Amino acid sequence: MSQGPPVCFNLDPLFKPRSVAVIGASDNPGKLGFHVMKSLTAGGFQGVILPVNPGSGTVMGIRTVPSVNTFEGPVDLAVVALPSGAVPAVFEECAAKGVKGIVLITAGFKEIEDPRGAELQVRLRGMADRAGIAVIGPNTFGMVNLSRNLNASFTPEFSRLRKGGVSLVSQSGGISHLLAFMAMQQNGSFSKIIGLGNRLNVDFPDMLAYLMEDPDTRVILLYVEGLEQARRLLEVARKTRGRKPVIAYKTGRSGTSDRASFSHTGSLAGRHEIYQGALRQAGILCVEDAEEFLDAARALASCPLPLGRRVAVLSGQAGPGMAACDVCERSGMEIVSFSAETQEKINELLPPLALRSNPVDMGPAWYNSDAIAGILRAVLEDKHVDAVLLLTMFASANREAVSGISRLFRDWSQGKPLITCLLSPPGIWDEEVLALEDAGVLVNLPTPERSAGALASLWQYKKMLDGAARSTR
Amino acid sequence: MSQGPPVCFNLDPLFKPRSVAVIGASDNPGKLGFHVMKSLTAGGFQGVILPVNPGSGTVMGIRTVPSVNTFEGPVDLAVVALPSGAVPAVFEECAAKGVKGIVLITAGFKEIEDPRGAELQVRLRGMADRAGIAVIGPNTFGMVNLSRNLNASFTPEFSRLRKGGVSLVSQSGGISHLLAFMAMQQNGSFSKIIGLGNRLNVDFPDMLAYLMEDPDTRVILLYVEGLEQARRLLEVARKTRGRKPVIAYKTGRSGTSDRASFSHTGSLAGRHEIYQGALRQAGILCVEDAEEFLDAARALASCPLPLGRRVAVLSGQAGPGMAACDVCERSGMEIVSFSAETQEKINELLPPLALRSNPVDMGPAWYNSDAIAGILRAVLEDKHVDAVLLLTMFASANREAVSGISRLFRDWSQGKPLITCLLSPPGIWDEEVLALEDAGVLVNLPTPERSAGALASLWQYKKMLDGAARSTR
Repeated sequence: MSQGPPVCFNLDPLFKPRSVAVIGASDNPGKLGFHVMKSLTAGGFQGVILPVNPGSGTVMGIRTVPSVNTFEGPVDLAVVALPSGAVPAVFEECAAKGVKGIVLITAGFKEIEDPRGAELQVRLRGMADRAGIAVIGPNTFGMVNLSRNLNASFTPEFSRLRKGGVSLVSQSGGISHLLAFMAMQQNGSFSKIIGLGNRLNVDFPDMLAYLMEDPDTRVILLYVEGLEQARRLLEVARKTRGRKPVIAYKTGRSGTSDRASFSHTGSLAGRHEIYQGALRQAGILCVEDAEEFLDAARALASCPLPLGRRVAVLSGQAGPGMAACDVCERSGMEIVSFSAETQEKINELLPPLALRSNPVDMGPAWYNSDAIAGILRAVLEDKHVDAVLLLTMFASANREAVSGISRLFRDWSQGKPLITCLLSPPGIWDEEVLALEDAGVLVNLPTPERSAGALASLWQYKKMLDGAARSTR
Repeated sequence: MSQGPPVCFNLDPLFKPRSVAVIGASDNPGKLGFHVMKSLTAGGFQGVILPVNPGSGTVMGIRTVPSVNTFEGPVDLAVVALPSGAVPAVFEECAAKGVKGIVLITAGFKEIEDPRGAELQVRLRGMADRAGIAVIGPNTFGMVNLSRNLNASFTPEFSRLRKGGVSLVSQSGGISHLLAFMAMQQNGSFSKIIGLGNRLNVDFPDMLAYLMEDPDTRVILLYVEGLEQARRLLEVARKTRGRKPVIAYKTGRSGTSDRASFSHTGSLAGRHEIYQGALRQAGILCVEDAEEFLDAARALASCPLPLGRRVAVLSGQAGPGMAACDVCERSGMEIVSFSAETQEKINELLPPLALRSNPVDMGPAWYNSDAIAGILRAVLEDKHVDAVLLLTMFASANREAVSGISRLFRDWSQGKPLITCLLSPPGIWDEEVLALEDAGVLVNLPTPERSAGALASLWQYKKMLDGAARSTR
């Protein structure tokens, strides 16, 4: 279904509103308007929150207005959580009021079997375009801009996320919630999470262009099922290539999920391989599952890119080091031989319990934190080494020995990525690892294989940039 | 290095001891003997704990003896945490006392560069074989048998694990700790975790044979770097094939980790593909990383095997369902068309918001738990369906709607595997999901892709069994 040429909007009213109206605000937990109000109020939004409900005097202790038009001040953003039949009138009111952004949570449009849903969506699109209103949705959980404490979604829990530099543009509420919940457990962080829903007049290319200019966003994630504006997306990606990393997770590989995508958001997923190839050619890194998606995002948001493919693997126990080596070599990276000087230093610092070449098993020196520090420093400074993996499974027996390592990390910055798997049962060393992550010193991931995988993502992105630089020379 | 023909031992004294001596027991947290004592005492072991230390009167409040020989009662198991030079004398004492099992935590044997380490190991092997002592180690964290509250390791935290039917035999302490910590976070459970270390006289085939007969073990995990007794292991595996699922995670894929393995435990990892092929031919399921290892173990320990490859995907949001479909189809499973009756029932229960065929997006019916229950029942009873995936990202907005589903699950047992990804921010629905897992109703995994991957492991194992049955007909 063609929806006419794209219209370009200023998306700032969506993401940086001074005031937000909740149309359909409610004190009844069975209503979405309840959860939206809870998200906005509990999320710490600093601007005006305006519950719109003709039937009740207050919602969550805030005085309501019967319609946006009866409010005296300006309204930048409206979040709409009313049945679909009521939406055209709301759009009219918003247009009259000069609202410039709408988050349309309501479902029942293009995604339903009844053709009247699609017709209504076309009508709303016309109204929004004429009024210059940028619309997220319909059929979406909403969106959050943690950088502004703005939670314009029906999920108050999004506000539990740490603020960071990763922004997600997603065609699925489920995948958005999945990534958010994973990030809560794994110390991930976000700037924005945007549920595009049926994409009334804001689609992937609009969001990509906006986030490329957004100072709060360092890495852009796209969860894609089907693309209606593939050509435009690729164009924006190519033009902004290399400015910020863009990572895509595309489902719809199989015939089944392709059909599902059509039903879900009214657009065909299309041939998976063709999309993947086109995305890669436009400088977008493609991943294969939700964990790789989040891990690659965290690595690209925090780590410098490796200059080459040569990895050093330092571990507190040999097995995790071997597991990481396997992933590195499978991904085209090299477990490099150290320089003679580095190897000599390591041999001085580690007892002759073998595994002193790469991968280094630092276990035998674990109770000597000077030795651990010396090895790490030598390896980070080695010109043969482009990136470092540090892997240790902590338990109480080796916990005491590592105090002080965190302090040492902070003093070094060789411009090389340091990805770790410093794992422990709950309660051991967690805070120190979190502090190191917050300081941007390292990225800590839940398994050795995922640490190596995230490094592989950095390396693949670097290769992609280099390839583009060569081809345009 | 040949170590002579294998000797067969009764391993019960190791895993079901009435009394455990800790040789090198200490009140000094800088000593491994401290952590071993803590593991044993805090782990809830019901038998006699005997700290052996000639220098101190008590350790952790328990009266010490200067040597095992001065204790009047029988000693079944000795855990040794003394420097390597002191070990031969300890072995002599244990032999004289009639000890039948030793966990030798001490390092500094075959794994060190100095050839005297290997020589000492050969000497100890002779002593142990002559005295009929089965030895776990040397160069190991130890082992735990949660089924008996026996934590004979230097890691007290192992005792935090839930008891279950999975037993791990591992060539790496790091990987053992990794899996244990992952299980603590993801509601996994174990019966035994055994760190084989340098394998003085107990190796993979001995453990495999023992665990096949162990009533507490339902699934056997092998973490393998290199194999000295590959032929014997494959023989045991072939003979016991199909009795209990066996899953192997083998690192050493690359040249680098192959060399690392040789240094680490003195055995060559060998050609990865050859090993993988041989393991598979012997009926052992091979996995590629630690997460797949744990997920497959949990699925095989709790779920019935699917009779065929036909999967139903039910989800609360379309995106996670599509991600799962992709993994299923990539793994050779089929997202099946429901029977006409099932489809009719679903169409009655779900509003015409599409995605009513497989995968089913139950989101539109989420506030009607009778409808959800009806769909689940219809799909589980459908003869076209061999296995069910149920995926929902819970937040407060959809939390209330699902009370009662847990109760419904318990009433059905169609002999079909039910694997879920019921994910939520901490605090929402966790206890109900845990209770369902404990009741053996389902296995809940952290992402839709991993849920589908675990189902794929069940299906691969089933195919392997069927293939063997056909070839022996």
